[in-house]
Amino acid sequence: MPPGATVADAGEFGLISRMVDLFEMGEHVLVGPGDDAALLRIRKGHVVVSTDLMVEGRHFRREWCDGADVGRRAAAQNISDVNAMGGRAHSLTVGLAAPADLPLAWALDLARGFAEECRLVGASIVGGDVTRADQVVVSVTVLGTCTVAPVLRSGARPGDVLALAGRQGWAAAGLAVLGRGFRSPRAVVEAYRHPEPPYEAGPAAAEGGATALIDVSDGLLAEAGHLAEASEVAIDVRTADLDVAEPVAAVGAALGSDPLQLVLSGGDDHALLATFPPGVGLPEGFHAIGTVAEGSGVTVDGGAWEGAPGWTHF
Amino acid sequence: MPPGATVADAGEFGLISRMVDLFEMGEHVLVGPGDDAALLRIRKGHVVVSTDLMVEGRHFRREWCDGADVGRRAAAQNISDVNAMGGRAHSLTVGLAAPADLPLAWALDLARGFAEECRLVGASIVGGDVTRADQVVVSVTVLGTCTVAPVLRSGARPGDVLALAGRQGWAAAGLAVLGRGFRSPRAVVEAYRHPEPPYEAGPAAAEGGATALIDVSDGLLAEAGHLAEASEVAIDVRTADLDVAEPVAAVGAALGSDPLQLVLSGGDDHALLATFPPGVGLPEGFHAIGTVAEGSGVTVDGGAWEGAPGWTHF
Repeated sequence: MPPGATVADAGEFGLISRMVDLFEMGEHVLVGPGDDAALLRIRKGHVVVSTDLMVEGRHFRREWCDGADVGRRAAAQNISDVNAMGGRAHSLTVGLAAPADLPLAWALDLARGFAEECRLVGASIVGGDVTRADQVVVSVTVLGTCTVAPVLRSGARPGDVLALAGRQGWAAAGLAVLGRGFRSPRAVVEAYRHPEPPYEAGPAAAEGGATALIDVSDGLLAEAGHLAEASEVAIDVRTADLDVAEPVAAVGAALGSDPLQLVLSGGDDHALLATFPPGVGLPEGFHAIGTVAEGSGVTVDGGAWEGAPGWTHF
Repeated sequence: MPPGATVADAGEFGLISRMVDLFEMGEHVLVGPGDDAALLRIRKGHVVVSTDLMVEGRHFRREWCDGADVGRRAAAQNISDVNAMGGRAHSLTVGLAAPADLPLAWALDLARGFAEECRLVGASIVGGDVTRADQVVVSVTVLGTCTVAPVLRSGARPGDVLALAGRQGWAAAGLAVLGRGFRSPRAVVEAYRHPEPPYEAGPAAAEGGATALIDVSDGLLAEAGHLAEASEVAIDVRTADLDVAEPVAAVGAALGSDPLQLVLSGGDDHALLATFPPGVGLPEGFHAIGTVAEGSGVTVDGGAWEGAPGWTHF
């Protein structure tokens, strides 16, 4: 293929074979890409499955993220959903709908990004589909397994400790500066492009007795709201225990807004929010950020939060 | 919701809950939609997985298919991929990207179509995602299981019998008349809107000793080509043994073209193409349509076919 070749130049099967060449298959992949379906060996008697879509112009922009960034972000978002059950991802499928003039190099970078993020957790890309569309849509399904019982959103009990693992507000700060045409602070821009979800924290939470678990993809307060609703409890978040990192604070100052808003409503870092019974030591990576009580809804330092709780998809 | 409500009126979570209300969960679904991921009980030590995208304007048009048609077609196409491994589908995930002004009724009809097609094989919709996009994109991942060893594309041997199960050319004839602004013959238009894949034929082929198996989604000759390539054999199709159904013949006559072209290059009926060792009785639903020999490539009645072999995605 010449430099500047498009996905249409490569053709459906050329594009697929070039993408698949970038993927490594784990030993559990008995039949990988290329047949009507993939065949996976499943050692435990269950599978955890989740699916997500990322749409150009809504979840990413090609001027802000190269193909590898989009691939890493799409893979991270899905692997994080298995993390949020207390599990480990082992297999992903990837659907790519794209305009005919999408540069082939972008699509192959996307595949490289997927491969890089999957390598972090030992997961394999086992199948997929490519087709033409007006805008780029990346569809991912992840399969995984739990070593102990999965941790749902619905198990939080009054008296539990609310705890967080992973960074919060970094990706939201990165998105905020990119949206205003800036490229710095570099640390938050990189955090938006390459989230670093706490992949060890999900299984650690499950093994450590977490009563409820969710990943923060739509905003900390929004996800706390999902936990509170599913568990039929009230949740209070203590801002004094939230880490407002220096580059996040700098973005808040530069934008003339409260950096806590970035921490409380930001998604895309894929932090984990968990509840643990009182008196249980928190697993490595978690720190307490609030409390669970009888009642309903989410408060911040005992009162209502005036800002936005998070992100909405329609 | 008032009549004429859109998906944006329903909102992300309103849309999801209305769709999920239309789905039935099988007993293997330990955790269904609503948590970070679904949890499925897997009795056999493996899972078969495949994924497909359907894009508005490319794979369907809203003026030709209502939401339920698109749901049935999308589900059928994916269930057929498990059928083509000799397996049975048990679970699907569905991603829906759609413009904000998509009628809510269309999205709920889509969910109904998925539910109807899944009911035919006892499969459950266990998870999904909805988000906004410029055009409707439906992304599906199917999980399934095989009762005996899965049948790949690569096992055909010289001397094997080539056999077909299911209708061929019906959906292509329906698409051809819809594309010219007609709505009849009704039988082929219905075949395009509601494919009837031979779901029993996949497991029957596997149990009956098929050496290779593929489903016809891109055209009979195109899929025969995939089989021939993967198995490193030559395949010859005998047109005298192909069933040119009366409404397909009528469409060919009306369009002034050879109806065999519809049978040989049509997809979307999701027929199954298999090879069996010589002398083995063919399972119910299959009939012989050709031969496998040493060599490579696909011939029709011993010679080259001048028409198109099938459909291309870029």
